[in-house]
Amino acid sequence: MAKRRRPTQDPFPAEPAAGNGLLDRRLFLTHGMALLGASSLAAGAVTPASAAEPPDTPAWMQFPGAPFSGYGSPAKYESTVTRTNIQSRPGTTGSGSSRTPLEALDGMITPSGLHFERHHSGVPDIDPAKHRLLIHGLVQRPLVFTVEALLRYPMISRLHFLECAGNSGPMYGATPPTLTCGQVHGLVSCSEWTGVPLRILLEEAGADLSAPWILAEGADAAAMSRSVPMAKALDDAFLALYQNGERLRPENGYPVRLFLPGYEGNMNVKWLRRIKVTPTPTMTKDETSKYTDLQADGKALMFTFPMEVKSVITRPSPSLTLQGPGLYEIAGFAWSGNGTIKKVEVSADGGRTWAEAALSAPVLPRALTRFRMAWKWNGAPAVLKSRATDDTGAVQPTRDALVAAHGANVLYHYNAIQAWQVEANGEVKNVYA
Amino acid sequence: MAKRRRPTQDPFPAEPAAGNGLLDRRLFLTHGMALLGASSLAAGAVTPASAAEPPDTPAWMQFPGAPFSGYGSPAKYESTVTRTNIQSRPGTTGSGSSRTPLEALDGMITPSGLHFERHHSGVPDIDPAKHRLLIHGLVQRPLVFTVEALLRYPMISRLHFLECAGNSGPMYGATPPTLTCGQVHGLVSCSEWTGVPLRILLEEAGADLSAPWILAEGADAAAMSRSVPMAKALDDAFLALYQNGERLRPENGYPVRLFLPGYEGNMNVKWLRRIKVTPTPTMTKDETSKYTDLQADGKALMFTFPMEVKSVITRPSPSLTLQGPGLYEIAGFAWSGNGTIKKVEVSADGGRTWAEAALSAPVLPRALTRFRMAWKWNGAPAVLKSRATDDTGAVQPTRDALVAAHGANVLYHYNAIQAWQVEANGEVKNVYA
Repeated sequence: MAKRRRPTQDPFPAEPAAGNGLLDRRLFLTHGMALLGASSLAAGAVTPASAAEPPDTPAWMQFPGAPFSGYGSPAKYESTVTRTNIQSRPGTTGSGSSRTPLEALDGMITPSGLHFERHHSGVPDIDPAKHRLLIHGLVQRPLVFTVEALLRYPMISRLHFLECAGNSGPMYGATPPTLTCGQVHGLVSCSEWTGVPLRILLEEAGADLSAPWILAEGADAAAMSRSVPMAKALDDAFLALYQNGERLRPENGYPVRLFLPGYEGNMNVKWLRRIKVTPTPTMTKDETSKYTDLQADGKALMFTFPMEVKSVITRPSPSLTLQGPGLYEIAGFAWSGNGTIKKVEVSADGGRTWAEAALSAPVLPRALTRFRMAWKWNGAPAVLKSRATDDTGAVQPTRDALVAAHGANVLYHYNAIQAWQVEANGEVKNVYA
Repeated sequence: MAKRRRPTQDPFPAEPAAGNGLLDRRLFLTHGMALLGASSLAAGAVTPASAAEPPDTPAWMQFPGAPFSGYGSPAKYESTVTRTNIQSRPGTTGSGSSRTPLEALDGMITPSGLHFERHHSGVPDIDPAKHRLLIHGLVQRPLVFTVEALLRYPMISRLHFLECAGNSGPMYGATPPTLTCGQVHGLVSCSEWTGVPLRILLEEAGADLSAPWILAEGADAAAMSRSVPMAKALDDAFLALYQNGERLRPENGYPVRLFLPGYEGNMNVKWLRRIKVTPTPTMTKDETSKYTDLQADGKALMFTFPMEVKSVITRPSPSLTLQGPGLYEIAGFAWSGNGTIKKVEVSADGGRTWAEAALSAPVLPRALTRFRMAWKWNGAPAVLKSRATDDTGAVQPTRDALVAAHGANVLYHYNAIQAWQVEANGEVKNVYA
């Protein structure tokens, strides 16, 4: 890539990629440091060594360390990196959600211990030896499957995000919520899911594949249930048995959940106990009293299944205060329930100019995609934004456009561009800008 | 793909892919079940339902479940899925290894809690606020980095396996070890690693990039250290700060480790405290007394860095007993430190005939690759094998060929084809065949 050089007296001669300090990140990764000369990327936190000899021996090198463990845990120094539980139903213990601390993560995988939770009546304690899955309704042979039986079927593995339909809902409010990135947007996570294609089990039961709907029901006390189009069931739906290599976690549906790539999290029914092939949608409580999108005119949209194209900058973001002017990496996640992320643009001047961010490979359909951009912050207040485009051509809307189209009565499917205001003191705030 | 049909009286009319019951797996995933008619893939564990009504309400649906948690854990029913600690130095608590239970996993990711461990003096308890990394030696500006400083640099994310050079070492023995798959081969795991390209930090220190070697030293009590070619340092080496989305686990080098894609696990120095640019290899205790490959003639190979092409069937494998004749999925992992897996072949007749397995996407360089094959077991004893080929054209050798080339004095770099004998009673045994 041919790039013109700036005048040599410029202390950071990399070519700008857009306004207010956005830089071409590729320069960084090839010979950017040579261009920087002696100045440090992380000035103040890197110090010249006075001698070329090894440093002092720290305390932890002076005696043998801890022994082996059967199943490991995060470092005690990371004990503040947890899901945040926001109760949506005061007085109950298991109805609500807990959110992934997106601002503390990097890469595309969410560790299973930090995958978001959304429960309607808590996490059932299911003995896998006693759990049963029934497939019935418009089928030739109603069948009951044990978990042991499901584990014998041919499997597929997929890296996919899962996003609650209500993710980012507080952003419909009149004033921007003063929460961390994860507390606002952390009802999205990404795992490798492995399981049995639903189509195989439907065929085994002799299901009428021309029937337009199925019902999926969970074995929690809420018997959470949703209607799913047969077309999705036959396309890419599967029954997930493994998450990030090991068996599902209890809060993610152990021993078996439905997985519908790109669809509202709620439809990916956990603790799956029943699939019924039906001639019509069942109109369950969970798809009539909830998970419908109330519009400004008082009518509600139903069955809005795929989660739309979206992105968010996770670093910097509220609670991650910048340590003075200098070079930073702007990083975040992008995703689309309708396909694959095609590009992510970043702005450091509130949306006046945009530059295309680098995407970390592999960029996979319906998976979180990590984007990265270099930024030389000059110390003045700045508004950072990211804007994702997927391979259907859909572009993430502004908040104004989203509210103009749907009103602000909606609780679900918020996917507008997020603006973070960086203050002169380095603090980062959520703003509608 | 055009496939001839077998005579219709055949109860399983799928076209064989190789001898002794190996079947084309694609048939399974498209319209295989229709061809099967009413017979079940998992006969005996799937039962016809007598009525089309919902099953009885199990106990766990009759009261609200558990509340939200800050950081989740596996289901209590999976408490036997742990790493196996095999001490290599009796009398010490932190010198040896613990192995990933490969036979209990599916997909390509290893959950961080089950990632193998290999320590030389236990797991140091490192305070990240006090940890320092020194870059010195043949550099213009020796530099000391805090962890906070490292976290500000531009990052990359990569899905890569890590394999201890001593993985599968017991297979050099005169008789096949009677252990599980993970206990023999579980010094390999796969994670998404995120961190800072080493090249950036070397350039910042003004390192002499024509110097041929670097030394990397860990902050454990063993000061574990290895020499690494500068060519690798400048190519794809990075300092990993995140593993599977969150900060490194203590047993995998918290707060920072060197990562050298495809190279011996031991060289991926954990708890990294020092990188020294050197004119020659340092000949540390860890690369002279260990991690050399003693040949039959008494001479030893040194600096055998990349882990060679390899695969293993994880299901079925010892401890996973088959439940009678019928259809099974044969599944396993393949990987190569020299590149990307090109194909995996499976045999059910001891290597007489082979069929190509399906590979789960994404198939990535220097990452675990999941392979899958359909098998109709007739109930007679059978020997299962897998054989991987990478994109350099390298093919996994037989055990006989490996031992003929290197002798059996070697402890490291065992990558021969694994044979599992399935007995008539369904038990699976490790055999040299």
